[in-house]
Amino acid sequence: MRKIILEVAVSLDGLIEGPKGEYDWCFQDQDYGLSDFFKRVDALFMGRKSYEMMQGMSEAPAGFPKLKEYVFSTTLEKVKEGAVLIKKNIKKEVEKIKNEKGKDIWLFGGAGLTTSLMNLKLVDEISLAVHPLLLGGGKPLFSELTDRIPLKLVDTKTYSTGLISLTYHLEK
Amino acid sequence: MRKIILEVAVSLDGLIEGPKGEYDWCFQDQDYGLSDFFKRVDALFMGRKSYEMMQGMSEAPAGFPKLKEYVFSTTLEKVKEGAVLIKKNIKKEVEKIKNEKGKDIWLFGGAGLTTSLMNLKLVDEISLAVHPLLLGGGKPLFSELTDRIPLKLVDTKTYSTGLISLTYHLEK
Repeated sequence: MRKIILEVAVSLDGLIEGPKGEYDWCFQDQDYGLSDFFKRVDALFMGRKSYEMMQGMSEAPAGFPKLKEYVFSTTLEKVKEGAVLIKKNIKKEVEKIKNEKGKDIWLFGGAGLTTSLMNLKLVDEISLAVHPLLLGGGKPLFSELTDRIPLKLVDTKTYSTGLISLTYHLEK
Repeated sequence: MRKIILEVAVSLDGLIEGPKGEYDWCFQDQDYGLSDFFKRVDALFMGRKSYEMMQGMSEAPAGFPKLKEYVFSTTLEKVKEGAVLIKKNIKKEVEKIKNEKGKDIWLFGGAGLTTSLMNLKLVDEISLAVHPLLLGGGKPLFSELTDRIPLKLVDTKTYSTGLISLTYHLEK
């Protein structure tokens, strides 16, 4: 079955955005394992805000792979050609996608979608690129989880810039 | 000069307590480098709540070193014999203590004191015992920092239980 992988950059204090929505602190100077990660996935899950942010970009960031996009929103009525809008029955729809043939799925965020999928126990792996800074305020990676979630640390990778990548599997 | 070291257990989502103040998730099965850490310090900084919590314990946790205790509180009128109460002029008082002869100082918390000392740029090192779980809600390690704080990763240690210890120096 295809895995859902949350792969995201965080500050050491567990925030994904600064107080004004900033993500300019994310290191861009090297690959940080992303090109290997991109080989594993062929689909992207994102919430409405992430979708709208990416729509606002003139082109995809360099090295960004061609991915089948799934947009989760209760308010959008349509999404761009080729993308799939999921408005309801999240659990059923996501389980159907996971059972389809294909590579793994990149859960891109944001916090609301991530929290929903975590609470439905649909996420298989979490890979955090922990940046060496404290943002001190801003948006946490998760909003409210229903329960504690135990994790299994499966990999760590330290880079010369002080970024450390931590990969966990979710225990089922 | 003596260093102030924030050494604390956190969940992967950057929380130091669960939604009801729980810290039962902190691993107790092995030393996790604490006895080496205890050799480095001879003093303890803590806020009022941490002080009151420790006062409520019948005895110190096993292996807990003998430390000079400094309690930071604007509301307490006195503290136990041997301990020092700091009510105001935090920056001046802390700088004085840092300049005294002695080993390093353990900044124990809580979030309010930690945030104050971080904002005053008095903390020298942060060592987080990142536990392999998501608490999903509760108390963040820091409340509101005034500015972003860049860090320098100086050490990582991974344990068989999935706990990873991350040590950073604060750039001055």
